[in-house]
Amino acid sequence: MTDPILVEVLRGASVESAHRGAAVVVDADGKIAFACGDVDRPVYPRSAIKALQALPLVESGAADRYGFDAAELALACSSHSGEPRHAATSAAMLAKAGRSVETLECGTHWPSNAAATQALARSGGAPSALHNNCSGKHAGFVCFACAGDIDPKGYVGRGHPVQRFVAEAVGEVTGARLDASTAIGTDGCSIPTYAIPLTHLARGFARLGTGQGVGPERARAFARLRAACAAEPFMVAGTGRFCTEAMTLFGARVFVKTGAEGVFCAAFPDQGFGIALKCADGTSRASEVMMAALIERFVPISEAEQAAFARFSAPVMTNWNGMEVGRIRAAGPLAA
Amino acid sequence: MTDPILVEVLRGASVESAHRGAAVVVDADGKIAFACGDVDRPVYPRSAIKALQALPLVESGAADRYGFDAAELALACSSHSGEPRHAATSAAMLAKAGRSVETLECGTHWPSNAAATQALARSGGAPSALHNNCSGKHAGFVCFACAGDIDPKGYVGRGHPVQRFVAEAVGEVTGARLDASTAIGTDGCSIPTYAIPLTHLARGFARLGTGQGVGPERARAFARLRAACAAEPFMVAGTGRFCTEAMTLFGARVFVKTGAEGVFCAAFPDQGFGIALKCADGTSRASEVMMAALIERFVPISEAEQAAFARFSAPVMTNWNGMEVGRIRAAGPLAA
Repeated sequence: MTDPILVEVLRGASVESAHRGAAVVVDADGKIAFACGDVDRPVYPRSAIKALQALPLVESGAADRYGFDAAELALACSSHSGEPRHAATSAAMLAKAGRSVETLECGTHWPSNAAATQALARSGGAPSALHNNCSGKHAGFVCFACAGDIDPKGYVGRGHPVQRFVAEAVGEVTGARLDASTAIGTDGCSIPTYAIPLTHLARGFARLGTGQGVGPERARAFARLRAACAAEPFMVAGTGRFCTEAMTLFGARVFVKTGAEGVFCAAFPDQGFGIALKCADGTSRASEVMMAALIERFVPISEAEQAAFARFSAPVMTNWNGMEVGRIRAAGPLAA
Repeated sequence: MTDPILVEVLRGASVESAHRGAAVVVDADGKIAFACGDVDRPVYPRSAIKALQALPLVESGAADRYGFDAAELALACSSHSGEPRHAATSAAMLAKAGRSVETLECGTHWPSNAAATQALARSGGAPSALHNNCSGKHAGFVCFACAGDIDPKGYVGRGHPVQRFVAEAVGEVTGARLDASTAIGTDGCSIPTYAIPLTHLARGFARLGTGQGVGPERARAFARLRAACAAEPFMVAGTGRFCTEAMTLFGARVFVKTGAEGVFCAAFPDQGFGIALKCADGTSRASEVMMAALIERFVPISEAEQAAFARFSAPVMTNWNGMEVGRIRAAGPLAA
């Protein structure tokens, strides 16, 4: 099936580009509250499920053993912008396990935050794996391994115990069978990513948001991870970014996490809903507007909150002279 | 009509994202050699028509008066990466008209070339309008104005003589009626962009490539601009970029120019073809693969050239550890 157009990009009064996609909202029993597009096709969830991938870190007791605070737990669930506090916190997590940046296997890139990159260059510095947007998740993997006396070397590999524990947790929470028939890709940070239908991803996030359908220990781990991200939203993404700003604005009412190639997952705990969506062409500007439209549809927010959120739900595009040149809006089944 | 899928992005063995689009190949008489998708819908051509927008600079004699060389003419047709030679050449063009960076009205941004940005930051510098990817086109506008005793102040405005001359040339070459019914947007660099059907854009590029269907003076201007870009392909884009690498590889056999939001135009002079395409969702990674597929289909190239061009026609995606994680390929009507 052809996914419907869910987001339009206007320049002047005309639609310049359009983005198709699929989105689904379900409760913890799997009952669908909203769906559009092909929500049964498996998609690589990429970084959108980092909170699920952090379960072994919490459930094994590793997070307690190293005394992780909310900022460190939030960073373990993050795709961060490589700002100084992000890199420093990754280093601090590793240090608690007696490790350093050398143990990270995520690779190195310059901070996605432009000011952080410019400041790093201006100081004569260069990026390390600590600046990789996945360094917090990887520091969590390393700490989980070290606390359990598992050699972290090769922890990104599909056959390594770390990834086997992670895949088991993801499979249990989403109810997706991860077996020989599952499409497997390698993520940007070198760990495996397993293709899972949006309906299953959404159900996993409904469980994350409610604790329903999982055992009490897992429910406590979910609550702890959500509370950490709500308390330290800067650590989940970075300055000015969707996940950080949405959780700053809405607090614990909304848990949101973006992933590469236009994936976005969320939990709306008060409504009992889990959400998963994918922009078919993989573009983040569109997946953000899709998620914003679902927040505005399903989460009661005040007029003041709606106004503050408008820069994500109905972004205005300006050019290099600060002139307004266009805007992005939800369309089709996601239009207000 | 729904545009077909023209490009697929694979991770592992599975399609992770897909891009739709429309593309058309015509000769100077308007006869269609290839078409797919909605090629009659008006699209903003953005920077893809900078070579047409440079016509007044050449035809007025301004380029001769200031003794512009091939590098300067190529920069006038460019969306450059803000590398040192680009910025210096923009400044040199302005100086020939007794002007400087202060006259530019394109706005300022950091170089799109990451190494150039890091070097600029490392030296304690900051970007100016010379680093704006459109500074060469704008320097051309300023020089056109000054040579004709037109005050350049406000030259980005739709009613300014510079933009009226530019719009007249674009309308004549493409055969598009630019009138009250034309959708008009403001481009990233603040000049107007007029929505024109892909069929008309392609016909304009067939004329640019062949000189057919235009007067002898315009045909000479086209040949001069094409020769300049073929001689100085670095000036048209920058290190490692599609337009620069394609014209370096194929020389005068291919004239290509990308634009924002997934537009790409080209001329294949030996075949007499003009080409225009747009990725419906506005993504450059896809418009590049679309254009590469059309080059491989319509331009005779050697096996060695095909191998050298593979990184644009069939890009391999690597992650931060240099592992191959996926690839991008032409699909549907553009599949080989």
